[in-house]
Amino acid sequence: MTSAPSINSLAHEGWSWPPTYDDSYRPQGTDKYWFRERETMPEAQRDGLILARIQDVMAYAWEHAPFYRRKWDEAGIHPSGIRTLEDFERVPTVTKQELRASQAAHEPFGDYACIPDSEVKHIHGTSGTTGRPTCFGINARDWTSIANAQARVMWAMGLRPSDTVFVGSLFSLYMGSWGALIGAERLGATVFPFGAGVAGQTARAVNWMRQMKPSAFYGTPSYALRVAEIAQGEGVDPRSLGLRTMFFSGEPGASIPAVRARLKELFGAAVYDSGSMAEVSPWMNLGESTESDGPLLWQDIVYTEVADPVTHSRVPYGREGTPIYTTLERTSQPMIRLVSQDVTTWESGPSPCGRTYPRLPRGIYGRLDDQIVVRGENIYPSAIDDVLTATPGYGGEHRVIVSRTDTMDILTVSVESAPDVSTLEVPAWLSTVADRLRTVLGVAVSTVHAAPGSLERTDLKARRVIDDRQLFREISEGRSSVDS
Amino acid sequence: MTSAPSINSLAHEGWSWPPTYDDSYRPQGTDKYWFRERETMPEAQRDGLILARIQDVMAYAWEHAPFYRRKWDEAGIHPSGIRTLEDFERVPTVTKQELRASQAAHEPFGDYACIPDSEVKHIHGTSGTTGRPTCFGINARDWTSIANAQARVMWAMGLRPSDTVFVGSLFSLYMGSWGALIGAERLGATVFPFGAGVAGQTARAVNWMRQMKPSAFYGTPSYALRVAEIAQGEGVDPRSLGLRTMFFSGEPGASIPAVRARLKELFGAAVYDSGSMAEVSPWMNLGESTESDGPLLWQDIVYTEVADPVTHSRVPYGREGTPIYTTLERTSQPMIRLVSQDVTTWESGPSPCGRTYPRLPRGIYGRLDDQIVVRGENIYPSAIDDVLTATPGYGGEHRVIVSRTDTMDILTVSVESAPDVSTLEVPAWLSTVADRLRTVLGVAVSTVHAAPGSLERTDLKARRVIDDRQLFREISEGRSSVDS
Repeated sequence: MTSAPSINSLAHEGWSWPPTYDDSYRPQGTDKYWFRERETMPEAQRDGLILARIQDVMAYAWEHAPFYRRKWDEAGIHPSGIRTLEDFERVPTVTKQELRASQAAHEPFGDYACIPDSEVKHIHGTSGTTGRPTCFGINARDWTSIANAQARVMWAMGLRPSDTVFVGSLFSLYMGSWGALIGAERLGATVFPFGAGVAGQTARAVNWMRQMKPSAFYGTPSYALRVAEIAQGEGVDPRSLGLRTMFFSGEPGASIPAVRARLKELFGAAVYDSGSMAEVSPWMNLGESTESDGPLLWQDIVYTEVADPVTHSRVPYGREGTPIYTTLERTSQPMIRLVSQDVTTWESGPSPCGRTYPRLPRGIYGRLDDQIVVRGENIYPSAIDDVLTATPGYGGEHRVIVSRTDTMDILTVSVESAPDVSTLEVPAWLSTVADRLRTVLGVAVSTVHAAPGSLERTDLKARRVIDDRQLFREISEGRSSVDS
Repeated sequence: MTSAPSINSLAHEGWSWPPTYDDSYRPQGTDKYWFRERETMPEAQRDGLILARIQDVMAYAWEHAPFYRRKWDEAGIHPSGIRTLEDFERVPTVTKQELRASQAAHEPFGDYACIPDSEVKHIHGTSGTTGRPTCFGINARDWTSIANAQARVMWAMGLRPSDTVFVGSLFSLYMGSWGALIGAERLGATVFPFGAGVAGQTARAVNWMRQMKPSAFYGTPSYALRVAEIAQGEGVDPRSLGLRTMFFSGEPGASIPAVRARLKELFGAAVYDSGSMAEVSPWMNLGESTESDGPLLWQDIVYTEVADPVTHSRVPYGREGTPIYTTLERTSQPMIRLVSQDVTTWESGPSPCGRTYPRLPRGIYGRLDDQIVVRGENIYPSAIDDVLTATPGYGGEHRVIVSRTDTMDILTVSVESAPDVSTLEVPAWLSTVADRLRTVLGVAVSTVHAAPGSLERTDLKARRVIDDRQLFREISEGRSSVDS
């Protein structure tokens, strides 16, 4: 039905390597797609183009990044040997630990950087709560490509140049805020980069939204809930803020039905989930459209394989796996088969919006770290990590203790504060932490304080969880592990 | 000596209305000037060009902004009647109160905005601690012009594309951070927009600077001192961070000899002061060069008259006055004779760097609000405002009480916390406030807590100061005011 795109239309749509986008390009406001051909072509046709692009990207990385050449040499793989997407599944995967080690050995950007340090124009990074943080060194070309891709996905969320986007998330290392900002700028929207994270700022955010009436909001789901709470505390109905579109990343919340429904109910706005990993920015490569059932996988921007956690081969549509990402437009620090350790289930396209991308009906809902079940709720320790990492004053380490009284599971989090949280501030801070955890996890959480630096650091997230319930059950049933 | 610039060279240097800058332009790294002709032409020649530009800007504002047309009509002034810079001194001045009133009556951008709301692409604003905040609605053209101007001034501070600029100030409403960011981007430097203001972030800033070794730092002087303190607390010599250039705005500190010397000593870096008002962005229109004696007035970007506080006519070079600003490149919300209420002394150029701009050897050192003398130090209440305004958790109102014991003046500040500063946090917060005040004012300050909203709001800053010393002296001398 869809005619094959001509070379001209694909060049117009920036399908070239390295990517070269026309910054003056913008669709008509009535156009449904930013790049119609790329978004709606048959999947098989796109896969052919993706394969060709993977070959470009691998050849480029082999030439410029000792990290990739070394890895592939050791595996007996050469870019010229990748002739199918199945061949590509044999390319060794990359872990975040490897990126960190590469940066420690080759400061500051690692030997997976394909550009000289002098070409880096933007520096951001991870929060580095577990050991050395990883830095992102992004060149001007990639910054432009990222902005273009984010604008494309925001366009699919219905955002237009006439929108005003209020960015209510911290502008610092966190790539979420910057990605939303430059995407909104590229789309031609008005952007109000307000930020978040400073004492008293949420009340000011509410006042400014009342004054400026932005039509769109970006932030984390938990922060949007906080905004609603503060507004209501001041007698302001969050619906009166006039938001029409709210898009999120940074937490799984916007794909969790209860949280999503709550956000819609509170604000009376459309809610869209998005976000993969900061390393694969444009992180909106997972992002919903106005009509999609869950985030789409924008495969022509970042090629995503939902894969078996052990073999790292793709699982069939309909099955659960972990996303493995390959950036198709990045020239500074390309990611080629980066394992996310996230958990999701993918389905084949097309979406009702006409885009032929696969999609994630439940979003990203977990991490490969074992989940725990507390009072019937599936809880991923990674969700606790995510909340704490995003919480100002977090000291970088914590423990999760699951225990049991006669009738009930008890979830306790022992959490380190940062050195600059004073002793006097601790009780209020612990209460804030407990609130944030409860909001995201859906179960009540007790928080107890650990002094800065007092908890042993570990790279194994699983070791953070201490489950006492087995012992409790065994004792209850008259056969404690001590006796066995 | 300097030959008259040709029309070609001035067009190349963007001297046109409305400004149209070539974003691909950049001087050679060895060039001393970004725009040689504009920066080094004889002052009289520049004044002629400025006059022509003022005529352009006034005609534009008269056509597009009811605010200006109304003001000028009432004063019997028409843009066509401004034939000399002396004529321009008769143009009515604008106060911040007028801008606020205009925005309240014509939401949201006021009737001094010369563009339709739909053309606004960036929204920022004032902190609005005293009443309604003022918002800035900036179009894409002005955003580009601002970036270009900031890059020019940063170039004069010796910054080059090979520099990495660490921006250590809050990214939110505050135009300082955004101006430093887009200036650094436009200059072609690497920029690390780290931010500030979140609990625990300063320690992370130190770690990141150790890891990334930025060559330049932007922030407020008091924040840089805080960075040094945190570094030293972790056993890190601030000099080891490797900063070569530090540039500041937001507080008068970098022009205060003691603070400047302390910054140089702590970091071993060159220190440059800059900054006028957010309303006149590009706020680096007051900015030092590597060789200047105090900030230069970059008159071809923003025309500044240092004027008599009452008559609003220019004072001669060498005399004290208040800067009155006229933006020469802004098309969105042009400022035409905006009275700063700041206090400075200007001197004629040229500067040793060859730029023919006037300069401010002592920077901006006060506000027209009456200064008070405490233990021999001249203290401007505005400096206290500035510190508190920049302090997270500030509730928006305070009182300054000057009293006296037998031998000593006592400066006490009663300060409201924001509603989200918990009772438990207050003591630590008060101590932080006292530290910040002491750093900037140079005298010890006692802080006492006022509950959120407990102090009466006022538009008259002077009413914030209560001086008890006269009473003390009268009582000491046996004639209290009660007896008289």
